[in-house]
Amino acid sequence: MRPDWIAVDWGTSALRVWAMDRAGGVLASAHSDDGMGRLTPEAFEPALLRLIGPWLSDTPIKVIACGMVGARQGWSEAPYRALPCPPLGTALHRVTARDPRLDIRIIAGLSQAAPPDVMRGEETQIAGFLTQNPGFEGTLCLPGTHAKWVRLSADRIERFRTTMTGEIFALLSNASVLRHSVGPGWVPEAFTAAVIEAHDHPAALTTELFALRAAGLLHGADPAATRSRLSGLLIGAELAATADFWRKSPPVLIGAPTLSRHYAQALAALGTVAQLTDGADLTLAGLRAAHAHVTETETP
Amino acid sequence: MRPDWIAVDWGTSALRVWAMDRAGGVLASAHSDDGMGRLTPEAFEPALLRLIGPWLSDTPIKVIACGMVGARQGWSEAPYRALPCPPLGTALHRVTARDPRLDIRIIAGLSQAAPPDVMRGEETQIAGFLTQNPGFEGTLCLPGTHAKWVRLSADRIERFRTTMTGEIFALLSNASVLRHSVGPGWVPEAFTAAVIEAHDHPAALTTELFALRAAGLLHGADPAATRSRLSGLLIGAELAATADFWRKSPPVLIGAPTLSRHYAQALAALGTVAQLTDGADLTLAGLRAAHAHVTETETP
Repeated sequence: MRPDWIAVDWGTSALRVWAMDRAGGVLASAHSDDGMGRLTPEAFEPALLRLIGPWLSDTPIKVIACGMVGARQGWSEAPYRALPCPPLGTALHRVTARDPRLDIRIIAGLSQAAPPDVMRGEETQIAGFLTQNPGFEGTLCLPGTHAKWVRLSADRIERFRTTMTGEIFALLSNASVLRHSVGPGWVPEAFTAAVIEAHDHPAALTTELFALRAAGLLHGADPAATRSRLSGLLIGAELAATADFWRKSPPVLIGAPTLSRHYAQALAALGTVAQLTDGADLTLAGLRAAHAHVTETETP
Repeated sequence: MRPDWIAVDWGTSALRVWAMDRAGGVLASAHSDDGMGRLTPEAFEPALLRLIGPWLSDTPIKVIACGMVGARQGWSEAPYRALPCPPLGTALHRVTARDPRLDIRIIAGLSQAAPPDVMRGEETQIAGFLTQNPGFEGTLCLPGTHAKWVRLSADRIERFRTTMTGEIFALLSNASVLRHSVGPGWVPEAFTAAVIEAHDHPAALTTELFALRAAGLLHGADPAATRSRLSGLLIGAELAATADFWRKSPPVLIGAPTLSRHYAQALAALGTVAQLTDGADLTLAGLRAAHAHVTETETP
């Protein structure tokens, strides 16, 4: 097996690689938990070689990477491109590797000056979405640790906002006093009631959080219902903050299936029907688009 | 030295004890970090004896304790007293110690059925406040890890709400992605601007949090100003949620001086002048009141 190029999705907590043929097909794939968060700059190249070493021959090969690998704390900083702009730029950020067989290019993240905001990795998913939905006009929502709400028009990203809903949910349910009251399981009714409550009265969020703990102590509240309510309060508050993205333009949700379904249920409770798209394939589609562009512009 | 009784403030993270004379004066004091959070039920008595052992003689001595020592995860659960009620009940919760010299009584916490809420320890501070301000009618605010907003009338607690502002501030500034953007120091203008913003638009909190990180990355925002803004956003949201406590009744703030001053500045930015009281002495004043009550009712 001799791949034509290698696609890399390098996030904070995971590294995924694909060996690609000339037609854009996948010959092989591999992954590890060598995410940016646990690597010093010197450790990136060895971490990559551990996965793609078996695919290399004597001649150089293009490696197209996206995600936190290009952050200031990553392998090599790929400066942000400023909005409004298409999700992919005309040039990628080159990294000089010690191994001469590696011709590495990193896809830059995007920045918005005001309100200040940044993304790294999602621009590649959005580029992948656009290859499948050319000319799309409207709103994308990419739920996750840091959820992104994105406004697209004429194949350009016009504006976006990030919420920390996923990270705050994890901190509150694992590291705060609420950890004693939440448990596994899902109660849809508790979730949607909390979504509506927090959306309609976002100021109440701060008092309703400790009430989850008190309800556990006083009324023996079901830990699954408590977890669902915590999620609903946070997502409801997020939807109140991002209403200008989705109220007039039902969003397309791009992300992990379970989380995307929860967002769709939350939006449905507020009268909006969202469309769901699995995000897993979109990153690879975006990496393909970036590779095609590089190949095209660099062909003499 | 032979104390008449011993006062104990036993919270989640600290244990403080005072040797008291018959007139309520302090003969000696001691403290350790043997808080409830690190003790199994069997470890409470040895932890207490390590501090008060030198003060004991052969005859039993009354030990009056407040705080999380009476929680379900504490030494022995002192069931909550339900609102509305005075901060101290007519009977304390007795704990049987292995050491026959210890006659231990725990002050019960308070509960509110709807909206669900609980307190343990603050009721003793409030009792102490009332001994110094008999007949007080109005609102108390006790900032901290879990801030309490309390409505008092006719020496009774009518209602209260808890916010997790202090705990969320600690989690976000130490354990979230924002830890890269916050640093020591205080910028009052950044704090008050954020208070007003979050109070007036509580829905925006969720997007403004990640903007702190983005402003650090894009604009090199001052880490002290970022920390002040994070605090201001959270306290502003808390003040929006608790407006029914303070809008018509300027609160008395009871707590650590620096944090209380920040709350006073936040309230001032919203047009309300709060009064400040150092909380350190109020717990002991409340323990004195509980001891006096026990002594009085148990005297034949």
